[in-house]
Amino acid sequence: MKWERKTGIVLALDVAERDEAFRLLDGVAGMVDVIKFNYPLVLAAGLDIITEVGKRYGKPVLADFKVADVPVTNNRIIRLAAEAGAAGIMVHGFIGIDALRSALEAAGELKVFIVTQLTNPGGLEFTARFTEEFAEIAAFLDAAGVQAPGNRPEVVKKVREIVGPELMIVCCGIGAQGGKFGGAIGAGADFEIVGRAIYQSPDPVRAAAGVRDAIAPFLK
Amino acid sequence: MKWERKTGIVLALDVAERDEAFRLLDGVAGMVDVIKFNYPLVLAAGLDIITEVGKRYGKPVLADFKVADVPVTNNRIIRLAAEAGAAGIMVHGFIGIDALRSALEAAGELKVFIVTQLTNPGGLEFTARFTEEFAEIAAFLDAAGVQAPGNRPEVVKKVREIVGPELMIVCCGIGAQGGKFGGAIGAGADFEIVGRAIYQSPDPVRAAAGVRDAIAPFLK
Repeated sequence: MKWERKTGIVLALDVAERDEAFRLLDGVAGMVDVIKFNYPLVLAAGLDIITEVGKRYGKPVLADFKVADVPVTNNRIIRLAAEAGAAGIMVHGFIGIDALRSALEAAGELKVFIVTQLTNPGGLEFTARFTEEFAEIAAFLDAAGVQAPGNRPEVVKKVREIVGPELMIVCCGIGAQGGKFGGAIGAGADFEIVGRAIYQSPDPVRAAAGVRDAIAPFLK
Repeated sequence: MKWERKTGIVLALDVAERDEAFRLLDGVAGMVDVIKFNYPLVLAAGLDIITEVGKRYGKPVLADFKVADVPVTNNRIIRLAAEAGAAGIMVHGFIGIDALRSALEAAGELKVFIVTQLTNPGGLEFTARFTEEFAEIAAFLDAAGVQAPGNRPEVVKKVREIVGPELMIVCCGIGAQGGKFGGAIGAGADFEIVGRAIYQSPDPVRAAAGVRDAIAPFLK
């Protein structure tokens, strides 16, 4: 599934197992633009779940694997994600330019998003010192985009200034981690990633509609 | 399988699929002390391969997942690795103290190794600036051990000075990445990770025996 350039919502599909994932998606897939997988569900359900979800719901899948190893390993992970049908993958900036360049070559059509900053408090200890540098590298290497911390909109704004209008910015940290709905898109991001606010709700469909409504005024 | 404190060899089982993994292990498992998995084989073969390999060969398994996300995700990955029977897991120092502390709590009996430096050239760009700091954090948080770059023995020596005698040091970067067999253990490491020098050899059994012989004079 091709990933169009637009503003919207990425659903973080951080549930524990496949039945729960499909139950959730049957209800909310129509209200989100991209479906994001972290490792836990893929480890529990197998990599094929990416292929299956992409086909069944017709949405691009983002493999949020926070790739952070040496090139030979990173590139194998990237190829496996591409073969499974993912449309994008998250790769850490701190692996260095040689590894990032190599990752982009291995990725081919798969969109690489370079992680500029982790959203947890510890993200401020190390990753935050290099957020601008990672954003510069992403622009220089012509990555598809970057991840930026949606719970820190001033950082999103700065990252947009650095990467220019061509690169996509996806933001974690919305909802449970403190970022306000629409705040990151308002600061220049393309996508806000929402997880717990939807999947931990007793009524995920209603929660997703609420998130959609809250973000709607900021969409471009 | 419990992981004893000793010096020895970690086999990086970086082959593409399960048949190849078992073929390789049938030949060489007896000659190594720990079996290390990266994500590519686990993604291709499923997480169960960790359980199966641990039982079949009676060796501790190191899940080299280079965990590098926010705590909620890291800790789920860690629990899945523990449930699959891994004895150890690699976690990036870069995620910050809150995430590392949380990872250690989630890990329980699973040994956490904090990555202090990536072995690729780009590892010198970002991770290397914090190698000593990551080693200090590992000692402070009483992690089981650290990973250090075996292709840079002077760094291994420095890391050993910082972490003291109690923590284990496992070293990547031996063989294909330039580190000499025995060089890291000679510099204070407990384990040298060897992958391509064994699994890419036309005769892996003979290659493993050669590695064993080359490292033997340095074992303690």
